[in-house]
Amino acid sequence: LIDEYEGRISTPVPRILEKYRDEISEALKISISDQSIFVYEMLRYCLGWVDKTGEPVKGVPGKALRPSLCLFACESVGGRVTNAMPTAVSLELIHNFSLIHDEIQDFDEVRHHRPTLWSIWGAPKALVAGDVLRMIADRSLEAYGDIDVGTTLRQVALLTEACLDMIEGQYMDISFEGKSSVTLYQYMNMIARKTGALIRSSIHLGSIIGSSDDEVARMFRRSGQSLGYVFQIRDDILGTWGKEYLTGKPVGSDIRRKKNSLPIVYAMSESQGVAKKALKEVFSKNELEDRDVELVLEIMEDVRSMEYSQGLAEEFCDKALDTLREARLSRDAMDDFGELVHFLANREF
Amino acid sequence: LIDEYEGRISTPVPRILEKYRDEISEALKISISDQSIFVYEMLRYCLGWVDKTGEPVKGVPGKALRPSLCLFACESVGGRVTNAMPTAVSLELIHNFSLIHDEIQDFDEVRHHRPTLWSIWGAPKALVAGDVLRMIADRSLEAYGDIDVGTTLRQVALLTEACLDMIEGQYMDISFEGKSSVTLYQYMNMIARKTGALIRSSIHLGSIIGSSDDEVARMFRRSGQSLGYVFQIRDDILGTWGKEYLTGKPVGSDIRRKKNSLPIVYAMSESQGVAKKALKEVFSKNELEDRDVELVLEIMEDVRSMEYSQGLAEEFCDKALDTLREARLSRDAMDDFGELVHFLANREF
Repeated sequence: LIDEYEGRISTPVPRILEKYRDEISEALKISISDQSIFVYEMLRYCLGWVDKTGEPVKGVPGKALRPSLCLFACESVGGRVTNAMPTAVSLELIHNFSLIHDEIQDFDEVRHHRPTLWSIWGAPKALVAGDVLRMIADRSLEAYGDIDVGTTLRQVALLTEACLDMIEGQYMDISFEGKSSVTLYQYMNMIARKTGALIRSSIHLGSIIGSSDDEVARMFRRSGQSLGYVFQIRDDILGTWGKEYLTGKPVGSDIRRKKNSLPIVYAMSESQGVAKKALKEVFSKNELEDRDVELVLEIMEDVRSMEYSQGLAEEFCDKALDTLREARLSRDAMDDFGELVHFLANREF
Repeated sequence: LIDEYEGRISTPVPRILEKYRDEISEALKISISDQSIFVYEMLRYCLGWVDKTGEPVKGVPGKALRPSLCLFACESVGGRVTNAMPTAVSLELIHNFSLIHDEIQDFDEVRHHRPTLWSIWGAPKALVAGDVLRMIADRSLEAYGDIDVGTTLRQVALLTEACLDMIEGQYMDISFEGKSSVTLYQYMNMIARKTGALIRSSIHLGSIIGSSDDEVARMFRRSGQSLGYVFQIRDDILGTWGKEYLTGKPVGSDIRRKKNSLPIVYAMSESQGVAKKALKEVFSKNELEDRDVELVLEIMEDVRSMEYSQGLAEEFCDKALDTLREARLSRDAMDDFGELVHFLANREF
């Protein structure tokens, strides 16, 4: 198992995620260098740099998807990478802030094979740690040097809007729980906010720093919107059919938790008669047993939930690429972006 | 009891809290006018405008201390009240955000005679509601019209810093819980952050909008620092000796919850021999009984905890006033400020 787990590291990492990794990592470490109170140690644990006793760990670093997208967007339109770094750092911190609070809300005890913050230090301290991270994210934007104050203020405003969108999406997600009548439309609206807002902003904000061309910025924004769908839909597929040693979650884990993920929402909308009745029955239970999960998986196979979901992810892949093609980036930049988009749609973890 | 409760409304309200009340209330209502998802209804409940079924309520409005201080500071140095309104709104929203999260952390089921958000809608939704409020607070600052972007950005930066201070203080407060060795120095440092940061910023930020004189802004900042101490120390006194029908908390409630409030920290540091031993024993218990609370109250009387605490609050009153006197405000402004400071040091709720 360990070997298989280690094996995933040898999967080729897209260039965009590779290229800026060290710079991002360094900037993040500076943003959380405070040693004055223990809460910062919790944040360093959350970001995967130390174990729960504070010892530095070597491990699989996070993908740092959002900051990488931001720096890529900035550079691809002719901007300097360092100019976009404050926003990149802020994006990654906001992402981690949302994870910390999500884990408390969902009672998740493990993420990426590591105990979550609240499960080690308790919900009250984890809640505060999330709030601290959110503030540090705000503060990171003040590090702007070369950028004029107007642009800085626009970054702040757009990021605030994205954050609000994200949290509203998170609220919608919670309020969907236990409902068996969530429509595909509601689902798409929810993930566009919960996940899409921050991914969309990542490349949108980067492009604004790199170029003053509003038309270009709009293309990045639209492309980012599609990319957000790709990311979350693939996430949902992994939440149902992903391999435990890669995702850290057992097969069918989203089903067991009755999450309104795409495969479930689709099965609910497409199944009929006995199957539909059975689905509703399963999801009205308090606790799902193994046979319930298996039944749902069978119905999903009947209505081809996986094929539908993956097909939708790939549609959004094409859309993300087509939209950005209009921005006339260099061939190298488009190749890198294409590689990343396909990676996100086909990743196993 | 109801009569007595209603009676408190007839206590003369300081002019600073009266003067801007309607304008603040209106601006706050605009900032949370969104009806799109239910979380905004929760926020309107939190701010005391509707009951938990969404029906509008007439009730005792909140003090709105922080926004009132901000507007007062701006006006007293010659600025226009409307110019400071975005910051004033932001301050009140941040204050309420911190209350929502604090209540979750402390398992508080009631605040000011009303059930808390989490106790009605559950911790996950309340947590998200707090996060939404925090974002709306950020967004409020973008409403600046007449103010130049440099000043706006400075407001954003100072408010972020104050928020971070506040949350770090909240973290310190949580991490003190159950410790019987908190020193007066640690206590003062903690409340300077947890409560002081936002109150200090309120008048500091207002003065910056009203005047470009850095020296004046520094005086407001220092005065606000003292005012923060006045507010929290009086809060601690009410948490131990306040009347239940006014504060909504039974006498000795901070003792029962083993909070490291000033009367307790002081009693711990001043008591000796048998009394000190008894105190430590009481605070090492999991659950405190009535007789434990009574014992602690007796020891506090012996070491004159109340007199010490009130004396300290009044010292900071003088400091707040002396510092601001150097700013050479109008006589009316100083009178109003003096009235407010004394109100905060002597309030019963």
